[in-house]
Formats: sequence, structure tokens, C-alpha cells
Amino acid sequence: MLCTGDELLDGSVPDTNSPWFMEQLAPLGLRPLAVTLVGDRREEIARAIREAAARADVLLVSGGLGPTLDDLTAEVAAEVAGVPLEEHGPTWDSIQRRFAERGIALSPNNRKQALVPAGAAVHENPAGSAPCFVLDLGRCTCFFVAGVPREYQALVQAVVLPALRARLQADGARVFRAARVLKTVLLPESHLDARIRPLVPAHPHVRFGTRTRAPENHLKLLAEGASQEEADGRLAAVERACREVLGEHLFGADDDRYEEVLVQALRAARRTVAVAESCTGGRVASQLTAVPGASDVFAGGVVAYTEAAKQRFAHVPAELLARAGVVSAEVASALASGIREACGADYGLGVTGYAGPAGGTAEKPVGTVFAAVAAPGGQVRVRRVLLPGDRERVQRLATAHALELLRHAVAGDGL
Amino acid sequence: MLCTGDELLDGSVPDTNSPWFMEQLAPLGLRPLAVTLVGDRREEIARAIREAAARADVLLVSGGLGPTLDDLTAEVAAEVAGVPLEEHGPTWDSIQRRFAERGIALSPNNRKQALVPAGAAVHENPAGSAPCFVLDLGRCTCFFVAGVPREYQALVQAVVLPALRARLQADGARVFRAARVLKTVLLPESHLDARIRPLVPAHPHVRFGTRTRAPENHLKLLAEGASQEEADGRLAAVERACREVLGEHLFGADDDRYEEVLVQALRAARRTVAVAESCTGGRVASQLTAVPGASDVFAGGVVAYTEAAKQRFAHVPAELLARAGVVSAEVASALASGIREACGADYGLGVTGYAGPAGGTAEKPVGTVFAAVAAPGGQVRVRRVLLPGDRERVQRLATAHALELLRHAVAGDGL
Repeated sequence: MLCTGDELLDGSVPDTNSPWFMEQLAPLGLRPLAVTLVGDRREEIARAIREAAARADVLLVSGGLGPTLDDLTAEVAAEVAGVPLEEHGPTWDSIQRRFAERGIALSPNNRKQALVPAGAAVHENPAGSAPCFVLDLGRCTCFFVAGVPREYQALVQAVVLPALRARLQADGARVFRAARVLKTVLLPESHLDARIRPLVPAHPHVRFGTRTRAPENHLKLLAEGASQEEADGRLAAVERACREVLGEHLFGADDDRYEEVLVQALRAARRTVAVAESCTGGRVASQLTAVPGASDVFAGGVVAYTEAAKQRFAHVPAELLARAGVVSAEVASALASGIREACGADYGLGVTGYAGPAGGTAEKPVGTVFAAVAAPGGQVRVRRVLLPGDRERVQRLATAHALELLRHAVAGDGL
Repeated sequence: MLCTGDELLDGSVPDTNSPWFMEQLAPLGLRPLAVTLVGDRREEIARAIREAAARADVLLVSGGLGPTLDDLTAEVAAEVAGVPLEEHGPTWDSIQRRFAERGIALSPNNRKQALVPAGAAVHENPAGSAPCFVLDLGRCTCFFVAGVPREYQALVQAVVLPALRARLQADGARVFRAARVLKTVLLPESHLDARIRPLVPAHPHVRFGTRTRAPENHLKLLAEGASQEEADGRLAAVERACREVLGEHLFGADDDRYEEVLVQALRAARRTVAVAESCTGGRVASQLTAVPGASDVFAGGVVAYTEAAKQRFAHVPAELLARAGVVSAEVASALASGIREACGADYGLGVTGYAGPAGGTAEKPVGTVFAAVAAPGGQVRVRRVLLPGDRERVQRLATAHALELLRHAVAGDGL
């Protein structure tokens, strides 16, 4: 992979395209030999193309296909291939159409985007003006695509991945693959590893990998077989075994998003939830309401930082605050029950704790958090945790613990 | 820059080290020629080191210095340099000390981390076990550092940047530099550009750059001069001019964080704020409470998604909801005033809108948001905006608009 663009070398824009492409390659059993980022400099781009083409079977070059002066990639590609640039008629037609539809005037520069190295195969860009072109340099097939992530992703999906799949088949690949990502939350990577390791010997045709997106850890499974049926069968077998050992930490697979899974579970159960949070400061509510249609299940939330707010909004008795202390199982429980009643919701969530950096006591140091869920029957379950890390991390993990209490309660529809 | 590690090539861990290093280089007037990522493969690492050393003055190699079998970098570096590996006594002593202090048993592998290419200069790692070593390959100075971001950053700060500064001076650099980042919010990049462009000709010794961190846009200024005083003077002059044209969109500089600036302004004014949010679902509260010590200024928040919650928590009259509609200037205003009074706060913030994807009307399509601030005197200011993008973007921008109303109100301490 070769990514071009000055903006990649001054720290202003991280390269998010390559990691995305790598994730698409994994199910094909492929990973890149190397990734190189260079600026908009003719000799650097040329050198990088030559070096990569000399040892890779396939090269993906991105960026530098725009209409401006510092967009050099098509020119350099032609130079490396030893061919002239040629106008690609259908591309120029489509650029003119695009601009006409939007009522924008064409500048002479725009015609530049229709120039491609002679002999290259050209594919239309469904998401922008710069076409994708494909060029053989020696034994290396080079794909040239736009660097704008939306266009990059569209072209990789439409052109590059199908070509790679076809090539794997044409190369007489007798290996078929099936992939799945299993997603867990609040299960440390070392624990995930310890649970999965014993399964590895029984599944010799499966590759296991992990990916951390704190507080989530994802298990990546890639099964291989001599037919698609065999690969699918092996994946199903290993997935069953993994689901069993991951247990309640498992919340979804592949493209599932945690908060969507949770909102969907509430909706399916026709249940609503209300939230009274202190140390998480609104994160529990905002994670739930990030989901489209959350209003079906979200009955309301309060951020009760002060004792007064805890009393007013969640009806926590002043006497209890004084007796048990604001950071206590009793107050978490009262927040959950109080907000459930105040909002007329099926479930109530309460969170209180010391997020730091200041605060905390000898018995309840910074990182101590109490989360509680009140269930439709009125019963309450409280979880006490001691969370590591800075304020941001404590808030993030505390939010995850509160939402997990809710997810498990909804799964059992009770506690 | 050369980054090694299989995890960089399967999409599970993005390379965040290089963009960070680039940002540190900018004030020195430096940017990398290229960045290459390779896996834990002996021949790929060796080839990449050779290729880079053949044309760069300085090479930073990161990763592959751990105790495990796939940590190959020291070995490969020695091979490329044509020297043997040698145990570095002080490093081995310090590793033993480190483990003894933590009461962890040493494994034979740990001794591997004390091996460095013969003749290399060695620097202790303040944040981990793997030392940093420096090796000349031809005319290229190669720094080898650990890939764990905490260790990487510590070693770049302690060893690499001072060496680069010294080298620039020794090379007889007669150019001195001074850098500043000016941070704006809710000012589109094209508008930022249009405001700054007229200033460019008057400041020929200043480089201008931008960086987008939506909803923020940052202006990067790098002034050069024949002395430090001259560079500082030029920076001061351009900064003055820029601050003037950026006006109220400017909220801070360099390491300032938006929410910290806002909380600090409230604290300095001895003012508190309460929040009643609908479509932002808790984001306004969570952004404010992300700041350590936010409890000094945050009086409470409610996420009033439903009409019932708007009435109960922020005392919005049912009659007003029916008459003006939940998404209206009147309701935003009532939310701000109501929550201000309910929490006894100095300021109240109210937000209501259609975040989408569903909802909206002909006059108030998805993306329509009303944000309001109620000030200590009781006056209210409302802002109506039509925000582009998906639900996530509308929520993010709506939050920024609400917080901006507050920031400007606090700056004027009124409206």
C-alpha cells in the first residue's frame, strides 16, 4: 500500500484508509507486505512505486488524483510505466455531467482528472471525479485510487477487492475462507486470551486474532477449508465453542454496535429505561441516545452531580445521602429506583463514584464506582468496581458497567 | 520513520506514533520524507532500514524491541550495520532493578532486551525496559525506540528531539523558529482560509497550515527568523493579526482544550451552569463533566427526551409544548430558563432539535436545532441552526453550538 499526500506527513491527517483496507483483506487471508506514506513529491512517489512494484504482486496507490497542481500520481504512474498520459473519454464525459448536474462551472484543471496512463484499465469512481485506473508494472498489478476516504472505500469495494478475489481463484487457490468477529465487553484481553487458548488445538484450520477497542475486546476468527462449505462448517464449529466460553461478556458479532444491540434488546422487550448518573456525567445517556430511534426506549436522564440534584431529580432522601455517603451502594440503588419512578420507566440505572483526579477516601479511593439497575418488579442489583486509569478511562469504564447491568437485566427481564 | 510490528498490518492497531512525532517535528521546520510500516519479518525490516538509510539524514525506527521471539529489530539493526550484538551492562542492571522493585520474576528472555548492536550509543528508557539505541549507517543517524506509545513518546522527547535540535544547530542552521496553534470552533475550514488568506502576503516568513478536528479547526503558524527574537517577534505579529480576524470563533491556543477553557472561564467568573438537553442526549453534560473539577461549575443536567421529562425536570409548560412544538425557539428557551431555576444555577442551557434520521417537518427538517442560554439576569438568547450530516454529526455540532452560546455569554457575563 502506498499513500500519497503532504497532509499525511505533517500530522494533520492520520492515514485511516490503510487500517480500513487491512480489515477488508483479513477475510481473504491477505495482509500487506508494507505500507508507505510519502508526500506530494514526484521523485518520492516514483521511487516508492518502483520499490513496491519490484517485490509485491499487487500495489494499491492512493491519493494525488485530484485536479490541482500538487496532484501528481497519474503523471508519475505514466512516467514509471514509460507510457504517455491519455484522456479517457468516458471519464471526461462523466466529469462534465457531474458538474452540469450540480450547476458548477468546470475549470480547465478538471480536465486533468480524465488523464490516465495509456493502456491502463479505467473504472468509474461512484463517489467522486477521479477515476480508478489499473496498470501492470512488471509482474505487479497496480491499482490507483482517490485518497478521500469515501471515494477510497467505494473504489476498494467496487474494484480492488473483487479483483483480488478473482486473482486468488485464478491463481488456483484451493483455500476457501470464512470470517467472523465476536465482540465482548469488559473482558480484559488477557482473560479473553485465557478463555480461548484451550480451544485452539481443536481448531487447526482456524486463525485466531484479537482487537482492542476499550472497553470492548474483539475476537477475530478466520476459518479455512478446501471448499466454502468446509470453511463455513469450521467457522460455525469454532464460533459455537467460543460463544460458550465467552459467555455473558459476548454482546454481538461483526458489524454489531454495543449501544444498538442494547437499544434493540429494550425495544424487542418493549421496555424503557431512565438514567440517573453522577460521576459518568451524561455518558450513559449519550451512549444510549446515540442510537437512531432511542426515543422509543429512553424515558429520560439526569446528571445529578450535586446532592441537591440527587434529591430533586431522583428523590434520593437527604438522610440517606448523609448516612451512607454520596458514593455508596445505597445511593446508587436509590438513584436507580428514584429515576425509574420519576420517569415512569421499566428500568432505572444509577451511577455514583469518584472519577478523579481529586476526591475519594481511604475505603473508597478514586476509581471506586457503584452502578445499580432497578428492574420492572422493583428489585435492584448493585455492582461495586474499582476502576483503573485517569478520569476519562474511569468514566468510560463506569458507563460500560452501568450499561452491562442493564443489558443483563433485560436479557433475563428481571435481574 | 519506520514502524515495525505485525499488529500494524492487520488493521487492529493504527499507527498513532508517527502522526504524533510529525506534530513535534513541525516547530523545528521538519517533516518526514516518508513513513513505512512493516511486519515482524527479518528481511522486510532489513530492507526498509537499508532503503531509508540510503537517502535520509535521520531515521527513527520503532517497535520490535521487546523480549519475545518476534522482536527482531535489534538483531536486524546489528546485521545491517555489520556488527555483533553486545550486552549493555547498565541496561541489564536497570532491567533487573525494575523487576526486583515490582517483585516480578525475570524470564531468560528479558536479558535479550539488554542486547544492542556493538558501538551503538545507548539511552535509558524512562518508561519501560527496552533501551533506545543510536547507530550511524553511512551518513544516516538511526534512532531505535520502543513502539508502545508511552515509551515511544518518552524516548522521542528525551533523546530524539534534543538530538535533532542539536544537529540543526551544528549544521549551522541560521534559521530560528517559533510556532503556535490557534484553535477555532464552528468556523468552517473554507471560512478560516478566507479570513487568513489576506494576511499571508504581509507575513512572508510565516508558514500557515490548518488542521481539522470537527467541530474545531486549528490554524498552525510557524514563523522563521535569523534569531530567536526575530522569529518570536514575527510570530507575535502574525498571531495578533490572526486573532483579530478569527474573532469570537477563537477559543484557545496550543494545548488548550475547549471544554477546559469553558470550565475555567466559568470558574474564574464564579458562575455555575445547568443543562436541559433533548436531541443532544447528554453530550452537553458529558463534555462539561469530562473536565476534572467540573463539579465546581456544573449544577446539574437533565436529558429531557420526552415531553413528560421536559415538564417534570425543566418545568416547561404543557401548554407551550402543545402551542410551539417541542422543536422550537420557545421550548429551547423554556428549557434553559427552567433548568437554570430548578438547579439554582447562574446559567441555563437548553437544546432541542431533530437529530435524525427520522423526524422533522417541512419547516423544520432533520438537522434543525434550537439552542438557548439563560443568563444570570434571566435574559435568554436562542440560536437556530440547520446542521448537515448524520445523527452523530448533528448531535456533535448541536453540542458545540450550545456550548458556544454559553462561552460567549460568560465572556460578556450576560448575553
